[in-house]
Amino acid sequence: MKEKISKREAIFYSHKMAQLSKALWKAIEKDWQEWTKPFQLNINEHHILWIAYHLKGASISEISKFGVMHVSTAFNFSKKLEKRGLLQFSKRENDKRNTYIELTDDGNELLEATLSEYNPEDNSVLRGSLPMTEMYGKLPEFLDLSALIKEIYGEEYMEILERSLENIEDEATVQEEPTDLENFKNQPKSS
Amino acid sequence: MKEKISKREAIFYSHKMAQLSKALWKAIEKDWQEWTKPFQLNINEHHILWIAYHLKGASISEISKFGVMHVSTAFNFSKKLEKRGLLQFSKRENDKRNTYIELTDDGNELLEATLSEYNPEDNSVLRGSLPMTEMYGKLPEFLDLSALIKEIYGEEYMEILERSLENIEDEATVQEEPTDLENFKNQPKSS
Repeated sequence: MKEKISKREAIFYSHKMAQLSKALWKAIEKDWQEWTKPFQLNINEHHILWIAYHLKGASISEISKFGVMHVSTAFNFSKKLEKRGLLQFSKRENDKRNTYIELTDDGNELLEATLSEYNPEDNSVLRGSLPMTEMYGKLPEFLDLSALIKEIYGEEYMEILERSLENIEDEATVQEEPTDLENFKNQPKSS
Repeated sequence: MKEKISKREAIFYSHKMAQLSKALWKAIEKDWQEWTKPFQLNINEHHILWIAYHLKGASISEISKFGVMHVSTAFNFSKKLEKRGLLQFSKRENDKRNTYIELTDDGNELLEATLSEYNPEDNSVLRGSLPMTEMYGKLPEFLDLSALIKEIYGEEYMEILERSLENIEDEATVQEEPTDLENFKNQPKSS
């Protein structure tokens, strides 16, 4: 099948995607910052700890790819976390070329503390998803968005995402307390 | 209907959304930077020009809201664009409290030059949308994403988005040249 997309349609589409995507990311970024600030972690630092936690250790290159951050950003923030005793660097026997990081006990503890402090009621994306959740009977799946990211970033990105999501399902840290989302539906929006 | 979402489900969902959203925004940001760099414009500057162009003048507060940038960012970059003679500041008779910006002829010309230089083949989001476009027979609509942004940012954000999209449809600048997307489907991905 031959696609004929006019330049106007292309600009229209990419303008819309830019606006929606920037708005979504800025909302997520803001929530994330507020969530991890009490732990003296910025988003990059928390993201590094989170990836290393879920993957049970990761190379700097995996952190960079999956965290969608530059290799030097991944490396420099990992160094800062090492100084705080939250992770350690190592080489692996079967892969001498790459630098790996692994959380220390303190790092594990801190990451788990952030997870247990996570409050769904502070999350504007979760809050904004409620009307769709009511309509669908479950949280929306964003299949188009997942398909698009898979196209842009490749299979591997989605595999790491799925591995990290499976780990969340297995974790003992996060208790199965149902959150009564009705209670905060009528509170003023944070934005 | 009462929603019961467990804390685990909430973390799962917000982790997934954070990963997808960061990945999408970083891809868009990268394409956007490369598109506007030859015009000596960064993303914020181009975004300001674009919003003012589509809305035929806008207040700093509209730029900030719709551009999802801090008011001071909107103001400071607008000042830089003013110094380059690309826009001018003004007050409106019926609204003395807000500062408005309006593109100069040079600003209009530059923005239109960026649009006519826009190359759909350089756009990783557009490229990544091709398989869905083949499947659906049209570009994907991301209705869930739009619904979510409407919930988080409110009706007004979506109205401004629609106004700016209508303007793209009306514009004479962008010619209706069909782009043969088949031609670049098998090129290596940029990421």
